[in-house]
Amino acid sequence: MGSLSKIAFSPLEPIEFSKESERVIDFITQYYNNIEKYPVRSQAKPGYLKPELPNSAPYSPESLEDILKDIESKIIPGLTHWQSPNFFAYSPINASTSGFLGEMLCSGFNIISFCWIASPAATELETIVMDWMAKMIELPPSFMSSGNGGGVMQTSTCEAIVCTLAAARDKVLTDIGHEAITKLVVYGSDQTHSALQKGAKIVGFPPSNFRCLPTYFSDGFTLSPQTLEDAIQEDIKSGFIPLYLCATIGTTACAAVDPIEGLGKVARKYNLWFHIDAAYGGSACICPEFRPYLDGVELVDSLSISPHKWLLTNMDCSCLWVQNRKDLINSLSTSPEYLRNAASESNSVIDYKDWQIALTRRFRALKLWVVIRQHGLATLRYHIRSDVKLAAYFELLVTADSRFEVLLPTKLALVCFRLKPGQNDEEGALINQEMNKKLLQEVNKTGQAFITHGVAGGVYFLRCSVGAALTEERHVEGLWKLIQEKASSVVL
Amino acid sequence: MGSLSKIAFSPLEPIEFSKESERVIDFITQYYNNIEKYPVRSQAKPGYLKPELPNSAPYSPESLEDILKDIESKIIPGLTHWQSPNFFAYSPINASTSGFLGEMLCSGFNIISFCWIASPAATELETIVMDWMAKMIELPPSFMSSGNGGGVMQTSTCEAIVCTLAAARDKVLTDIGHEAITKLVVYGSDQTHSALQKGAKIVGFPPSNFRCLPTYFSDGFTLSPQTLEDAIQEDIKSGFIPLYLCATIGTTACAAVDPIEGLGKVARKYNLWFHIDAAYGGSACICPEFRPYLDGVELVDSLSISPHKWLLTNMDCSCLWVQNRKDLINSLSTSPEYLRNAASESNSVIDYKDWQIALTRRFRALKLWVVIRQHGLATLRYHIRSDVKLAAYFELLVTADSRFEVLLPTKLALVCFRLKPGQNDEEGALINQEMNKKLLQEVNKTGQAFITHGVAGGVYFLRCSVGAALTEERHVEGLWKLIQEKASSVVL
Repeated sequence: MGSLSKIAFSPLEPIEFSKESERVIDFITQYYNNIEKYPVRSQAKPGYLKPELPNSAPYSPESLEDILKDIESKIIPGLTHWQSPNFFAYSPINASTSGFLGEMLCSGFNIISFCWIASPAATELETIVMDWMAKMIELPPSFMSSGNGGGVMQTSTCEAIVCTLAAARDKVLTDIGHEAITKLVVYGSDQTHSALQKGAKIVGFPPSNFRCLPTYFSDGFTLSPQTLEDAIQEDIKSGFIPLYLCATIGTTACAAVDPIEGLGKVARKYNLWFHIDAAYGGSACICPEFRPYLDGVELVDSLSISPHKWLLTNMDCSCLWVQNRKDLINSLSTSPEYLRNAASESNSVIDYKDWQIALTRRFRALKLWVVIRQHGLATLRYHIRSDVKLAAYFELLVTADSRFEVLLPTKLALVCFRLKPGQNDEEGALINQEMNKKLLQEVNKTGQAFITHGVAGGVYFLRCSVGAALTEERHVEGLWKLIQEKASSVVL
Repeated sequence: MGSLSKIAFSPLEPIEFSKESERVIDFITQYYNNIEKYPVRSQAKPGYLKPELPNSAPYSPESLEDILKDIESKIIPGLTHWQSPNFFAYSPINASTSGFLGEMLCSGFNIISFCWIASPAATELETIVMDWMAKMIELPPSFMSSGNGGGVMQTSTCEAIVCTLAAARDKVLTDIGHEAITKLVVYGSDQTHSALQKGAKIVGFPPSNFRCLPTYFSDGFTLSPQTLEDAIQEDIKSGFIPLYLCATIGTTACAAVDPIEGLGKVARKYNLWFHIDAAYGGSACICPEFRPYLDGVELVDSLSISPHKWLLTNMDCSCLWVQNRKDLINSLSTSPEYLRNAASESNSVIDYKDWQIALTRRFRALKLWVVIRQHGLATLRYHIRSDVKLAAYFELLVTADSRFEVLLPTKLALVCFRLKPGQNDEEGALINQEMNKKLLQEVNKTGQAFITHGVAGGVYFLRCSVGAALTEERHVEGLWKLIQEKASSVVL
């Protein structure tokens, strides 16, 4: 073995690890210092990167400095800067120092906790932090580890939906036979995230068994329990089996909050699995003034919230709670010989591999734990409220300009607005849509801010979604000035 | 808005970010310095953590120092140290300085690249790095972005399997109608990772449609093409529709390498989707001497390799290539209004959301790019070869002790061995199993090393899986000494 030990190769040597890590911390710190200088939405053209990089991997090592230089000159120009204070697009994916520290610790330990024994602390901390979070949003005890339920941290809402769809499916099919899979029906609204339709397809339901129920301006684009019940009755009449309902707290397009209690009663009446996608809006429920959004949650089978959206937790981190963990485990558990161990067989521990799709799982609990502890509930509430206030401020600014209108009363930290239509007919609607599209393009083209659009009830509108950790009042004011300025060039 | 700006709350303030990040780098560096002092497999008892932590989240902020103190005293004792040089269990999940730097950059930018426009650099770098990797393992050009195929980075093999199962399913069901879902059959061997069986269940196939084909000692526990063909013919006779085959390069229990070419011919003959799970063994194929494992890969529809296992890339990072990207996209694409944009509609860009389950996706390409560049192909090959040499060295040590036997010729960096049975009958086999189980327990109880077991062909054996980045010759020697010592107390 002599020849082996002579060659120095130590890919995790602590002195080098420390030195190079500090260099990268400097680099990222500089990035945050400069972040306002970059165009928020990348102005790169499709295919820009290929000519900039070699066609194949280097044979010999390259230096960290060379790599950082390339990141500066070739990668950063191709980034859309989600952490920019001028990012008002989509939903927030807010980073924080705490979230970053948590990620570092998680990546430094680099453990994989599929079974309890593979790292007891990771499993147990996850259970504890999920109970903390459950208390922060005042979930009934049945969702906690002391009851029949419990929580698990996954990659995304999409994954939470796939897992709960599978659990709901298997619970029913075990009783009535697998052939009935083509009869199972999934319900959402035309505002529900596309993850539901995709998830229903992934778990094997015919695409035509997805019901995209209509919502209306008069209801603030929320799903009406009556609409749901009508659809269910129709399906039963046609020989279908209503299986799963997904309601949303804070829809993607316009932050609509579905009426949980009313929908829950219908879901219970017809024995549907009821999931709440609170990916965005759920974080706000740590504030007493937003907690009423969750009223009726006792009627729910599962609930997901993504702290990587609006709770200062760097990607990825999505929390899923269920009222009956057995349903999830019955559907998703496996126990291959090579993972068998005394602790798992004693039934005294949780093996989170049985609560999710993959064996692979990050130590996300550590990250969320650091975020919660470094801020405390008080500061996390302050964080939510300050974004909500900034959105309210933006709404006020919009309202004061007679060329514009706020489409819906602002929910959470999302303002839906548009240039008013000039005439109230079909032609006017078309002209208005083109005008607002043009305005969106003009604003984003400047690189000074990034906003996106939505459509609800056939109306095209612009969205100002507040939530980046660096956003202050002046950035919201800057966005509004930019929009006003561009509006002048659009409205002729 | 005056009251808002008066309160200082800046969760991503660069000076604080830099200071606290450096503190955590110090902490992690210390962890690596001390890593050999901790019991490799945690000695925590089930439920150990709950009494150590508060029942609910703190209301007020806590200091980083307090949190780090708790991690030191409460979390680390509950970790099983996957980065310990004395970790020889399961498969490696090897961290490296490069992988860590890549993770930091990814977490620092904290962008989410579901669509090209959401961060063009992330999408384009992913395409480029996947092409680099494809060349490193000499995949045919049809798997690259210039052909009809291409690569995507996902969380795990489990996810890759779910996505390709869904693609295979939808390709067939589109032609013959959704009712046929209960007739679709999935094939693997009794050595295939449990992800296949679980994945088949997730995408909606009846559990009884999973064929777990037997393997034999005489074939080194590889799947025989004849066994596969017999099973397929049997299924066709019974009215089933053979759909999907998963072969493995480096099975979990004993690193068996299935014969890709032979299986591929059968798969092509019966028009099955053929996936290769090379999560562990695929990384070795960057070395010319291991590349023959992939011979026949042109017959394959999809292939996955997890650089987070054995290519120095911190979790998570799994590479999936397909020969026909249309199949994947047809099954997994969605285009909700709020994500519509000019670039996507021009069809000149990739939207990776349509290649995976979730919208959420980390900037994994950046991490793997840093790992490849900082090491270069030459050093990555050296890394693989040095682990393989260490495993060969361990095999040699085992062979020299007449109480032990190596069960199978060592493949990759995994040695399967056991205490020899005293008598060659059923009773002897039982006694032998108990003896080896006892030996495993005794070794792991010391905390000085961690190994796990496997079962193949009914034989219980111990596994020495080399691969942690810090492992050197002396650790392998230490493990062997420990095993010899404990064997003396087990064999009476």
